[in-house]
Amino acid sequence: MRYAVLGTGSVGRTLAARLAGLGHEAVVGTRDPGATLARTGTDAYGNAPFAAWQSAHPGVALATFADAAAGAETVVNASSGAASLGVLTAAGAANLAGKTLVDVANPLDFSHGAPPALDPVNTDSLGEQIQRAFPEAKVVKTLNTMNAAVMADPARVPGAHTVFVSGDDADAKKAVTALLESFGWPSASVIDLGGIATARGTEMLLPVWLRLYGVIGHPDFNFHIARGGTAAAAGA
Amino acid sequence: MRYAVLGTGSVGRTLAARLAGLGHEAVVGTRDPGATLARTGTDAYGNAPFAAWQSAHPGVALATFADAAAGAETVVNASSGAASLGVLTAAGAANLAGKTLVDVANPLDFSHGAPPALDPVNTDSLGEQIQRAFPEAKVVKTLNTMNAAVMADPARVPGAHTVFVSGDDADAKKAVTALLESFGWPSASVIDLGGIATARGTEMLLPVWLRLYGVIGHPDFNFHIARGGTAAAAGA
Repeated sequence: MRYAVLGTGSVGRTLAARLAGLGHEAVVGTRDPGATLARTGTDAYGNAPFAAWQSAHPGVALATFADAAAGAETVVNASSGAASLGVLTAAGAANLAGKTLVDVANPLDFSHGAPPALDPVNTDSLGEQIQRAFPEAKVVKTLNTMNAAVMADPARVPGAHTVFVSGDDADAKKAVTALLESFGWPSASVIDLGGIATARGTEMLLPVWLRLYGVIGHPDFNFHIARGGTAAAAGA
Repeated sequence: MRYAVLGTGSVGRTLAARLAGLGHEAVVGTRDPGATLARTGTDAYGNAPFAAWQSAHPGVALATFADAAAGAETVVNASSGAASLGVLTAAGAANLAGKTLVDVANPLDFSHGAPPALDPVNTDSLGEQIQRAFPEAKVVKTLNTMNAAVMADPARVPGAHTVFVSGDDADAKKAVTALLESFGWPSASVIDLGGIATARGTEMLLPVWLRLYGVIGHPDFNFHIARGGTAAAAGA
């Protein structure tokens, strides 16, 4: 399968490397490949320069957002949430039309200080904004409720834990669920919440995730939905 | 210990019955006890009339919000979130001053249809609003991320799962953690997120909880925070 991963940060790098390791064609999309490769020094999050990362991952190509999306069968939005609509516009609606668009971004809003808030939130979500802006894409919101390393390698967190899926297209959700299983997610760990509007719920997990990161001190944790039986529920 | 439980719905009833069962003095607070006892028929959530419930729980008294709070050492806000500030105002700031105020409510906003949204949300929380309105109370937000039956009897959900605690007063959080342990919560399941502002994070779990309720079909489930080791985290 040919994947475009839009975004050169740790999420994009981690997912592109995982896809390439699984034998897929993975092209990272960026606004200006020359500028991305010319960067030296670590970024704001402490990531090594992209050129250094790419030399360690020769199987991953770099292209413009539009070229990456045009050549892909499936597109992954791994850009920062505040930039995502602009990134996808640069990728081009025609290059997204009819394709599964895996949205792993969160609309973090740093304008109120740290920890970041969300925008949109509550009565809208980034996943819904993207689906409205690109109605011919099949948007599937998933993996946005955990650290990038856990997205690509769920075994980093022992025991059962959950990955949510939200989207309006049943076939696209089926394809994304198969991709998640190829990453190592047991099918029993995948919870399909319903349509893309349910992304409101999963994006709103970020504020507690950010606070848990502070308390736990490392990002190797995840939400698990522990369930009782329906019999027990009868008395609820 | 003498507890006031403000609210006559299923959350208030469940917590009051649990407290009485543990040998505490539990008084349910309501606006007008006479009107509450005069009600016949089930309420909007299908709860039996309070008088019928109370006849089955003779150990639980009923009083006005103010009388219940005045006689209590610890007050539990089990009112609906939209009503909570009014309920606590009726209870009286003087009757809350210096006391631990356990806030288990969520500010559900039904004005946008179902499932409900939140108000306040994102840059504020009900827990913070209550602490600001009653600065002499020691507000501890907890138990708001699950169904009432699970709050009082965590064993309904098998395996490890999590209860969050948020508050500005360390001693009040210590007392609430001991109460949670008496309900059956293992100390390892209690996560102290920090100050009352972290209630933003736990209140924002409600939108996904409501959607999970729809998918799972019963309320006997809960969030668990699955954790990897710090060693694994080094590579994150």
